[in-house]
Amino acid sequence: MTTKQTPLLDLKFHREVSISPAQIWEGWTNPATLMKWFCPRPWKVIECDIDLRPGGIFRTVMQSPEGKNMPENLGTFLALEPLKRLVWTNALGTDFRPRPKPIDESLGFFFVVDLRLTPLLNGGTSYAVNVMHQDAAGRQVHEEMGFQEGWGIALDQLVELMTPIDGQH
Amino acid sequence: MTTKQTPLLDLKFHREVSISPAQIWEGWTNPATLMKWFCPRPWKVIECDIDLRPGGIFRTVMQSPEGKNMPENLGTFLALEPLKRLVWTNALGTDFRPRPKPIDESLGFFFVVDLRLTPLLNGGTSYAVNVMHQDAAGRQVHEEMGFQEGWGIALDQLVELMTPIDGQH
Repeated sequence: MTTKQTPLLDLKFHREVSISPAQIWEGWTNPATLMKWFCPRPWKVIECDIDLRPGGIFRTVMQSPEGKNMPENLGTFLALEPLKRLVWTNALGTDFRPRPKPIDESLGFFFVVDLRLTPLLNGGTSYAVNVMHQDAAGRQVHEEMGFQEGWGIALDQLVELMTPIDGQH
Repeated sequence: MTTKQTPLLDLKFHREVSISPAQIWEGWTNPATLMKWFCPRPWKVIECDIDLRPGGIFRTVMQSPEGKNMPENLGTFLALEPLKRLVWTNALGTDFRPRPKPIDESLGFFFVVDLRLTPLLNGGTSYAVNVMHQDAAGRQVHEEMGFQEGWGIALDQLVELMTPIDGQH
């Protein structure tokens, strides 16, 4: 076969969390919910468009702590299995239109995010992400941007958002 | 909204043909059938892999009239609506893994093919293709490769393949 795994192009993030697949799915697919956790504070997501179908838009705009809006992050969904799997990419836009090559590789690079959710016996979720890059340079830039830390902090924020507050006075 | 049609990046091919959507679907999705029509003779398709699911492989190898094998054409399916719509791209491979940037833009460029089939009252099919390119250079190379003529000849070959021979002595 011609296609094989190329882990050198991938960044993986895996954690078991206490919230359910349904809560995580809600966090990823409802724009109003996504905006509350998707990027590590004090950064904010200030705009979010989600059209939850293969070929539908997935768009976010982030804002720096100083109030500066970043260029939009634009992509599309490739595969959707409710509560189980969500795949999206920034290499294609709405209706699968190829997106232009990033002008500056240090800022822009193409990737595909494959998120898999598996229910745990304790009611929680195994949250496993594989981010596949077009080339080693893109993977490296993404890693050096703080991929592991960023995904971890964001997921913490989602868990916190979805966890009822009790015992806190 | 941020995403709009960008026809300057597209190549379109449309024709009404006498064969049915089912016959065209068979031609596009059964490797043994695809190999008989998919590239204009005397070129040949000598290998074809099709895994008909979003994220499944779509791979062909063409051979020149002189018997030289070309580099494989590798891609994946993005959307499949049996007898109605088939979308595939060479920008992603199996399981949506991003493919490396082409080394030489004059030979390699990324595109997405969106093929739509509509049944006609006479039993035939409206065969409408939109090929979306990443940039104007890719579109131009594709056009100058003989996009319109090539798709036309190939479709003629499919119609001929699917049309019973009678009245020919």
